[in-house]
Amino acid sequence: MWDSIWINAHLATLRAGKYGAVRRGALALAQGRIAWIGARAELPGEPAQLAREVHDCEGRWITPGLIDCHTHLVHAGNRVREFELRLQGASGEECDHAGLGPAYTVAQTREASEMELVRDASARLKRLMDEGLTTIEIKSGYGLDTATETKLLRVARLLGESGAVTVRTSFLGAHVLPPEYQGRADAFVDLLCTQILPAVAQAKLADAVDAVCDSAGFSVQQAQRVLEAARALRLPVKLHADQFSDSNGAALAARYRALSADHLEHSNEAGVRAMAEAGTIAVLLPGTHYFLHQQQLPPVGLLRKQGVPIAIASDCNPGSSPSGSILLMLNMACTLFGLTPEEALAGVTRNAALALGLGATQGTLEQGKDADFALWNIDEPAELAYSMGANPCAGVVKAGRARA
Amino acid sequence: MWDSIWINAHLATLRAGKYGAVRRGALALAQGRIAWIGARAELPGEPAQLAREVHDCEGRWITPGLIDCHTHLVHAGNRVREFELRLQGASGEECDHAGLGPAYTVAQTREASEMELVRDASARLKRLMDEGLTTIEIKSGYGLDTATETKLLRVARLLGESGAVTVRTSFLGAHVLPPEYQGRADAFVDLLCTQILPAVAQAKLADAVDAVCDSAGFSVQQAQRVLEAARALRLPVKLHADQFSDSNGAALAARYRALSADHLEHSNEAGVRAMAEAGTIAVLLPGTHYFLHQQQLPPVGLLRKQGVPIAIASDCNPGSSPSGSILLMLNMACTLFGLTPEEALAGVTRNAALALGLGATQGTLEQGKDADFALWNIDEPAELAYSMGANPCAGVVKAGRARA
Repeated sequence: MWDSIWINAHLATLRAGKYGAVRRGALALAQGRIAWIGARAELPGEPAQLAREVHDCEGRWITPGLIDCHTHLVHAGNRVREFELRLQGASGEECDHAGLGPAYTVAQTREASEMELVRDASARLKRLMDEGLTTIEIKSGYGLDTATETKLLRVARLLGESGAVTVRTSFLGAHVLPPEYQGRADAFVDLLCTQILPAVAQAKLADAVDAVCDSAGFSVQQAQRVLEAARALRLPVKLHADQFSDSNGAALAARYRALSADHLEHSNEAGVRAMAEAGTIAVLLPGTHYFLHQQQLPPVGLLRKQGVPIAIASDCNPGSSPSGSILLMLNMACTLFGLTPEEALAGVTRNAALALGLGATQGTLEQGKDADFALWNIDEPAELAYSMGANPCAGVVKAGRARA
Repeated sequence: MWDSIWINAHLATLRAGKYGAVRRGALALAQGRIAWIGARAELPGEPAQLAREVHDCEGRWITPGLIDCHTHLVHAGNRVREFELRLQGASGEECDHAGLGPAYTVAQTREASEMELVRDASARLKRLMDEGLTTIEIKSGYGLDTATETKLLRVARLLGESGAVTVRTSFLGAHVLPPEYQGRADAFVDLLCTQILPAVAQAKLADAVDAVCDSAGFSVQQAQRVLEAARALRLPVKLHADQFSDSNGAALAARYRALSADHLEHSNEAGVRAMAEAGTIAVLLPGTHYFLHQQQLPPVGLLRKQGVPIAIASDCNPGSSPSGSILLMLNMACTLFGLTPEEALAGVTRNAALALGLGATQGTLEQGKDADFALWNIDEPAELAYSMGANPCAGVVKAGRARA
């Protein structure tokens, strides 16, 4: 006897074939997992005799629950003043001089209480969850001292405690240089590797360690020190790579068998090939590309050619992608990067799960995986990427339970 | 005694000064209009003694109700198959050959019943209204025969009948060439001017007449015939101008003292100057620009220099801007076109009202105008343009009545 059975649905399983589609499908759940999935006609009996609850999906589509695998969800305040000043003609330098830029968010975040951070991040998270999200990655990186980085990661953990969404945390101490370390990047990397990261690891606050390796972040050597420190602590790694220039970040990520390398606008072919060999996932951030007016497109053709799985994420970063919509990211991935709607959907399901090391339990609809899925008022899966600003989500099930 | 008074609000009146902002303002309504507006401290008495109802806005911002002044809201179906095929590498010709493109929407729309059209358009309209919309323009143009064009305009009129939103209709018979007139554009313009438009005018279904004057639409001569026919019927005109090439559309619009000229990516300086002299509003469509990968930016600098008011609209067109979000258009107007957040907000309030000939009663918060406004959970008006995919709308008042 299963706990529940979901009939009269079309399934986008995201397994083999186009969307892994099973029209007129059925899905049975037991103990929070998918116990049976297939064509309705192949169900081994009458639904009401097979499960305690029968849900009629009324012809809706079901996809895996969406996964946002790269966010800076937990931070204080916004960057609306900077946004407005820049559009009034101010330069980046003038904004920095006015105390804006990332330093503004760092200052606000250091001052904020955990309660304030929880309240603001919960509001952002709710918007994403309303769009079918069941798993989210949340990075630290606007604290940049031990107290604030651990505060951010505790808040992130707290957001996952209800079980309504899975939260995976990444420690991103090597995000930007804090004001008190300007001109002393190596000293800050020392601090990261010898004090902040060990404290984070000790408290088991991070599921992975991330770093920004780019002309606007840390050098390859500095990023490598962070990755080494993570490896010594047996923590998986991720890397912000090659967003603004080719720093051989993709190759560096591959060398450390990173779960993912993210952004990648300027990555070269050798780096992409190395990612393929290392099993490193490409995480593309179309909202950031759009918001920052980036001109160089990520190497989608190379990623396809080398067979690197592509994930898509919102970034949800006040300075570079103040986004509350993962569905909008699907549209931008297609419209700006030329992904197909199917690639975009795989990017927030199957490949996003891989980018978080959750491929065994999430990202596709198949027997044995977590019963995380979303129901949609659509006629074709491609509608999820086609619409700009619509939300056809009709319901979400997380670990077998329908979310209220 | 006023009907209601709204206190503890910040007002973005969109009159003179930055956002026309009045912090710690108050707003009094009587008989569906704004009876008093100003600083709370200048209210001529205690709120409870001045009005039958007192609403505490709890520090929220109030803006004029948003106005979407260019939409193709009423149509059947979507273009998701074409969207997906193109991203899989199909050419425009291949899509046309597969029966897709605008002809697909025309065929679907001709087949659809009024009830089906009402149902689909209502769902789109609801999304816009949830974002603070109080007025919308709706074009015909996917019917292209008398029966279907009048059907579309009747549906548009019906959507406004409840009074929850003001609907202004535009007859856009000269939108695309229907399949049965391929290669016979002049004959179709004959039909428009001698049969369809007179029938539409007779039934009083159109508040304005629009035409597409562009390399992808009708020639200057053909568009001019439509504008002449409208003039003879004393109907105001609008024009889709210069979207894909410089057809001197802006100048043509000005010559007919059009309410607005829309798109304008390729308009020249003489055309913009003529628009300024004629009082023709520029309607920019950033969602369309984005979705169609247009490279040429509209001449924002020239429009500013010549003092042409700029409006922003969603288009809400299945083939070129399948958008359900007017707030996303604010972000795109800033991010893609470089408008300031204040210009973007004026573009969906004050200037959008002008583009519909409604400047006397809508578009700003001032005494005597319609009591159409939206309440927002924001700290600064610029947040409306800063966020991508968020909806901070906390309530809407239309003609003095709070919308449920």
